[in-house]
Amino acid sequence: MTSPRQFGGAFWDAIARIRPVDGAAALAAGAHHDRLTKPRGSLGRLEATGIQLAAISGETLPPIPEPAVVAVFAGDHGVIAEGVTPWPQEVTAQMVSNFVGGGAAINVFARQVGATVVVVDVGVASDLDPAEGLLIRKVRTGTRNLRVEPAMRAEEVLDALDAGATVAAELVAGGARCLITGDMGIANTTPSAALICALTGRSPEEITGRGTGIDDTTWARKVEVIKDALARTAASSAAASRTDAAESTGEPLNTLASLGGLEIAALVGFIAGGAAHRIPVLVDGVIATAALLVASGCSPLITGYCFSGHRSVEPGSAAVLRHLGMEPLLDLDLRLGEGTGACLALPLLQASARVLREMATFDSAGVTDKTP
Amino acid sequence: MTSPRQFGGAFWDAIARIRPVDGAAALAAGAHHDRLTKPRGSLGRLEATGIQLAAISGETLPPIPEPAVVAVFAGDHGVIAEGVTPWPQEVTAQMVSNFVGGGAAINVFARQVGATVVVVDVGVASDLDPAEGLLIRKVRTGTRNLRVEPAMRAEEVLDALDAGATVAAELVAGGARCLITGDMGIANTTPSAALICALTGRSPEEITGRGTGIDDTTWARKVEVIKDALARTAASSAAASRTDAAESTGEPLNTLASLGGLEIAALVGFIAGGAAHRIPVLVDGVIATAALLVASGCSPLITGYCFSGHRSVEPGSAAVLRHLGMEPLLDLDLRLGEGTGACLALPLLQASARVLREMATFDSAGVTDKTP
Repeated sequence: MTSPRQFGGAFWDAIARIRPVDGAAALAAGAHHDRLTKPRGSLGRLEATGIQLAAISGETLPPIPEPAVVAVFAGDHGVIAEGVTPWPQEVTAQMVSNFVGGGAAINVFARQVGATVVVVDVGVASDLDPAEGLLIRKVRTGTRNLRVEPAMRAEEVLDALDAGATVAAELVAGGARCLITGDMGIANTTPSAALICALTGRSPEEITGRGTGIDDTTWARKVEVIKDALARTAASSAAASRTDAAESTGEPLNTLASLGGLEIAALVGFIAGGAAHRIPVLVDGVIATAALLVASGCSPLITGYCFSGHRSVEPGSAAVLRHLGMEPLLDLDLRLGEGTGACLALPLLQASARVLREMATFDSAGVTDKTP
Repeated sequence: MTSPRQFGGAFWDAIARIRPVDGAAALAAGAHHDRLTKPRGSLGRLEATGIQLAAISGETLPPIPEPAVVAVFAGDHGVIAEGVTPWPQEVTAQMVSNFVGGGAAINVFARQVGATVVVVDVGVASDLDPAEGLLIRKVRTGTRNLRVEPAMRAEEVLDALDAGATVAAELVAGGARCLITGDMGIANTTPSAALICALTGRSPEEITGRGTGIDDTTWARKVEVIKDALARTAASSAAASRTDAAESTGEPLNTLASLGGLEIAALVGFIAGGAAHRIPVLVDGVIATAALLVASGCSPLITGYCFSGHRSVEPGSAAVLRHLGMEPLLDLDLRLGEGTGACLALPLLQASARVLREMATFDSAGVTDKTP
């Protein structure tokens, strides 16, 4: 998959820069945990989280992941023509205005946890007015209809991947020390479910959820749309494999091109960009986990830099987490997207680093250890 | 159960003041949620949490529960003589020093979420030096051995209940708008498990956990200790019922007196005090849920003011939550106590109020609602 690059090949540069996390720092952090004034292992999942932060940073006492930035990538979806959602396409652009105005759930949660929100238009169907906190990196005014044709051309995928990787690099250059995935795009649970089916082998019936709250008829239609898209993708992939030796990293990106969407592709680049800079990435629900699945297909090292913020109600979220062997920090029956679940998990991630940095040891506090 | 009161009957005054939460405010908050710019119900458990905060405050848009204070009640336990823990009793006092010095996990988490920590000695076995952030409200230097005799006399229970209710009242008078339960007491999972068995009817084998990390031999001994304590309590209760008509609120307090401990009794008073002042109470793990169980036996209205911060690894925690029909906000395999799990859940509680107060509506943001 080669093509001219609008953003200078930022995605593949990022992939090439990703190094394994630091196992020695993880071991040292684990040993430090056992000296802290608490029963060993008593902080459960937060101990593993802190140890992973040590591995990411290469420091036994990892820096607290702050400041944190939520990047909400927005795009529209041609598959809306198939009637997969009761929400009109214009809502994507309206919600971008809502994000910029500070009135959406992600803005409220970001204020709660001390994170910043940036919105990135990579594929909204209409032209958006410039605004503070809005980056226009539009690749195309929405994807094509994934039921009948590839959602994106190869160069569009690469542009969107580069856009995401570039935003990550810019945010890190601006001081961000934790990246949080956000997304907005009416109908985007359809490409997400399709991608998850294609890359995990699970069935559309199992992975397709109720999204924003669809009825039985719409759900059945959505499943059929995804089946058709998967059949079309499989046929095209079989045709391609007769001429090209499939590259290990090419396959997930060909699948991504076939099924979309632009904001999902940008999230793939964003996650890769965070990993390339050794910055922890907090991953949100089903849209973001679909992107994580593609990203981890491009570099298996990526998941070492990622934390699952929450398990969404959408079944695809849990399926990806099982597939990648990840446990979410929160499980609150959320199904909103925007980055909301990941944003809410930020204090837990920060607390897990803070414990390693700030807790007293048995020696320093003069606390007697338990009898062996 | 009547006796002289060291702290002026604060507990029973609190119980008498507790009113039902405001159902009309809850309904109005639910209706408001449906106008906010998100798919209806998409914030899952946080919607129910915000609605409960509305019911507690009586306001459709509930105040954000801040500032928050963690009160860590500390006490020792005569049952340590039975070898139920590998930790020496001196660790209770040493950890109080650690709390006051800011080096324990609860201090670190409180700093993360912007809460304050106060420590209350209601029953530490040794005399503690005065320190900033330490309230000396000592009722007794530890409980008696619950295996062989009642852990507390009736007047000691009332003093500890009053101490907890008084601390709650003082903190609210000082501006606290969220109370978080904390506890410290070497061996205190033993009285907690015993109380949970006595008040839910579950077996010691089912409810007894590994506490701070005990081996099989210690676990078996702990189960036997709890069985003996339950048998002694049942016999004493049967004897009492031949002379007195059991009062509905007397029974849990008689059980509490029999099984202990002083910090658990203080937590019962603290929870009741929060409810009396219509202040949300964030309840921690197994020690705190044992106290909540006793408190809800004194007034069934109390749980309307309480939120479960997390589900502990200790099986008693999940048993109480099931018994009371509560769902925890976090489930992170924690088993530390001190209030750590509840403290970590604070940003979620605050976010659930903030969403109601700060999110735009479909009308205010000009976002199109979905087609019906």
